[in-house]
Amino acid sequence: MEGKMDSSRSAAEIADLLGAWPRGGGPLYRRLADTLRELIDQGTLTPGERLPSERALAAALRISRTTVVSAYDSLRSTGILDSRQGSGTRISSRVAPVRSDGWTASGNGNPMYRNLFQREEGLISTACLSTPALPGVEEAIREVVAEDLPALMAEGSYHPSGLPALRQAIADHYGGRGLPTTPDQIVVTNGAHQAVNLVSQLYLRKGSPVVVEDPGFAGCLDLMGDRGARFVPVPLDDQGIDGTGVRRAVAEHAPHLIYTMPSYHNPTGTMMSVARRRELGELSARHGVPVLEDSAYTGMRVADEPPPLAAFAPRGAEVITVESLSKIGWAGLRVGWLRAPAEMALRLSRRKVLADLAGPLLDQAVTVRLLGRYDELSRQRSDMLREALDHMEELLREALPSWEWKRPDGGAALWVRLPGVDARAYVQVALCHDVDLVPGAIMSAHTDGRHSECFRLPFAYERATQEELVWRLARAWRELDRYGPVAEEPVRLVV
Amino acid sequence: MEGKMDSSRSAAEIADLLGAWPRGGGPLYRRLADTLRELIDQGTLTPGERLPSERALAAALRISRTTVVSAYDSLRSTGILDSRQGSGTRISSRVAPVRSDGWTASGNGNPMYRNLFQREEGLISTACLSTPALPGVEEAIREVVAEDLPALMAEGSYHPSGLPALRQAIADHYGGRGLPTTPDQIVVTNGAHQAVNLVSQLYLRKGSPVVVEDPGFAGCLDLMGDRGARFVPVPLDDQGIDGTGVRRAVAEHAPHLIYTMPSYHNPTGTMMSVARRRELGELSARHGVPVLEDSAYTGMRVADEPPPLAAFAPRGAEVITVESLSKIGWAGLRVGWLRAPAEMALRLSRRKVLADLAGPLLDQAVTVRLLGRYDELSRQRSDMLREALDHMEELLREALPSWEWKRPDGGAALWVRLPGVDARAYVQVALCHDVDLVPGAIMSAHTDGRHSECFRLPFAYERATQEELVWRLARAWRELDRYGPVAEEPVRLVV
Repeated sequence: MEGKMDSSRSAAEIADLLGAWPRGGGPLYRRLADTLRELIDQGTLTPGERLPSERALAAALRISRTTVVSAYDSLRSTGILDSRQGSGTRISSRVAPVRSDGWTASGNGNPMYRNLFQREEGLISTACLSTPALPGVEEAIREVVAEDLPALMAEGSYHPSGLPALRQAIADHYGGRGLPTTPDQIVVTNGAHQAVNLVSQLYLRKGSPVVVEDPGFAGCLDLMGDRGARFVPVPLDDQGIDGTGVRRAVAEHAPHLIYTMPSYHNPTGTMMSVARRRELGELSARHGVPVLEDSAYTGMRVADEPPPLAAFAPRGAEVITVESLSKIGWAGLRVGWLRAPAEMALRLSRRKVLADLAGPLLDQAVTVRLLGRYDELSRQRSDMLREALDHMEELLREALPSWEWKRPDGGAALWVRLPGVDARAYVQVALCHDVDLVPGAIMSAHTDGRHSECFRLPFAYERATQEELVWRLARAWRELDRYGPVAEEPVRLVV
Repeated sequence: MEGKMDSSRSAAEIADLLGAWPRGGGPLYRRLADTLRELIDQGTLTPGERLPSERALAAALRISRTTVVSAYDSLRSTGILDSRQGSGTRISSRVAPVRSDGWTASGNGNPMYRNLFQREEGLISTACLSTPALPGVEEAIREVVAEDLPALMAEGSYHPSGLPALRQAIADHYGGRGLPTTPDQIVVTNGAHQAVNLVSQLYLRKGSPVVVEDPGFAGCLDLMGDRGARFVPVPLDDQGIDGTGVRRAVAEHAPHLIYTMPSYHNPTGTMMSVARRRELGELSARHGVPVLEDSAYTGMRVADEPPPLAAFAPRGAEVITVESLSKIGWAGLRVGWLRAPAEMALRLSRRKVLADLAGPLLDQAVTVRLLGRYDELSRQRSDMLREALDHMEELLREALPSWEWKRPDGGAALWVRLPGVDARAYVQVALCHDVDLVPGAIMSAHTDGRHSECFRLPFAYERATQEELVWRLARAWRELDRYGPVAEEPVRLVV
């Protein structure tokens, strides 16, 4: 929860936190000073913390050193920064300490959701893998209002585990996918994200080792980091998280939890093979390590998709499966769920009571009806994704032939590699071309700059947006190519 | 988070946890053994924990000692309990330790929400102060579906702080109540409960002193206890939390937060006076102690109601106001919000991202429309409550003339005092008459059995339910009167 008091972040990490700072009017140094000031006011940067040198920050932001010098000077003149010979520039300890928001607790300082708070006109943000609502959702809502409303309004009490009809529908849904399930194994949540949060609350405490995929989904790394978990990152191959790596991690670290995204991995789009699912299930049973299977993207398939990992787990394995209809149906619905052994489901539903008592009834009733047309939704969404992927790959191959990626098995993003180029530098250039990208280093529990050549590129946009996006990305790429990793002021001012 | 390992709970606390255990078939000792077994399986009772003596538990449950002896014997024979000369009966350390759910972390072992998980046919549960949905809610839902749906479905991104139109509507709503507010001060949450949780996450950590009302709302005491907060309970008078008590608590404990329910206090129904609101606001400004004003019941007035406490706070005070439409409109909606200084609202919305990314859009759009008819809803709800209160008071005065209560200023419950009688004993008898009551001791951060003569009695039921409830309560009261605090087996078997 507490901000870092005496640590120092790298220039690249500060650049991530600064986000779209050059946007807006006025001199560049002032915009930089103002954005630094905001980060201090918000408690993201804390009193006593050391800032990078002028030279390092200038390089990371691709601006001239004099701009950073002017920005630091102006903050020094108002007592916000201190500089002492030999100890560099620090945030003044006279700045009133503010409560930290835990936002940077994971050590990553996740800028992925930054854009949700700083909406910028004209900027294409790639922070969220949002997909447009399918028409079936609107139909389901209208059916609920036409047919279910009186019964819903008469519900006299809260349902912390979820509306009974929905728990039954979810259990039946798993039954139909080869995973026999009873309603008491289900807890309905406010999206898959809350389900992962509740599981983290139950299984992780300060210092708990947790096996995670590397790269992995920054949103969930964030919330586990916020609980103080200690990450044990394991790489992926094209069948999913590496089995040998997981076995070694279990032997060496006795993890409290293994967190994986089998269908489909975010950000790489990898689908975990049946063999790997079986291997993880057996490992859970043999070593008594619970597995959290986050399948928020299930049903968004480019190729065929096997049943959940839980379906391959032998007796004695503890697998918790998390899903949602946010991606397949509509992000605005915010209904997800978890499936766990019944006694764990009961305990998780008590965490739900502490979190927010229970979920809203209307959205749960809509979800009952959406599950009734799940196959149709999944087919529509998958067709839409395949088409968008084909078009995006075509555009990228043409405009950015040196970029590398593996065609994903599902999900809504490409994991792009920029051979020989630091993606963070490219992210800075892309910002000047009105695209907010998430650099690969953010998608890792490692703090050694791994995946520095990669970034995540969502592709599930309409054609016109795809074309505009790739056009901007190509312009930014040419600029990076022409001016190298550190550009001079005039380039920035063109924006 | 961790269960108690070597503590021992009082017989009364075990009785609270056992809940409606005598219900169902089979011999009484078996039902008791089975329910104890369930509590162990769920991790509520933990290996190594000592159980009360047979005599003490028998007295607390109002059953014969031989029943408890038989129950303990049967659990000993299967290795679940251990008894050693001189050290009493303990849960065997050979029982596999299970992960605790944090349910009992506050030390209270809150059975208030137990009934949400154990729905019993024919039982009248008083655990939640639910109120039936008002017709305006259904109208608002139909309007949203008729008019707002296409725009909602086109929303391309998450809104962690809330749908912009709703934040604006809430800001305007406060403006109209004498509390000028900008939308960036608002964070929309999944009910008032989540708002209190987010504030606790930001302000409280393990050991943080927090001033709370005594008695207070067990649901929120629970979630603060789950964060490891240290409670500093301050009593109330008929103007609200005692000002002198708060000043003394601030001087002695330097609390990180003052948690209060000014409109209306749960469980007493007290409305905080304007003078007391002003006093607390000034205290916050002078000592730099933030105040969390939980007004989940605002608008449910028996008498007139002043503006929020925040409206009386001078410059420099940090007051966070929490509200919801769950009580006034419909509990199934689960839309609440908080109003805070803008920089704190930003930090709280980041906690919202970690919790569940953002709230559902449909319910937020419905809330926009409900705020447009807030005065009408509040008037309807208040009329309904006054009528229900009048009738309930009349029924109680006639059937239970020795009971004492103060007519509440608002809210939906009476705080009843049973002169000379331990409410926990009465709760046990009431259970046999199919009423699940919440004993007063649960509603306190003190663990010394304060408020032992009191219990919370919701009154916002339809007339027929009120009459049935009072009839059952009166039967239970006569039984307690006739057989005293410890009844013999045959009385229990009558049920």
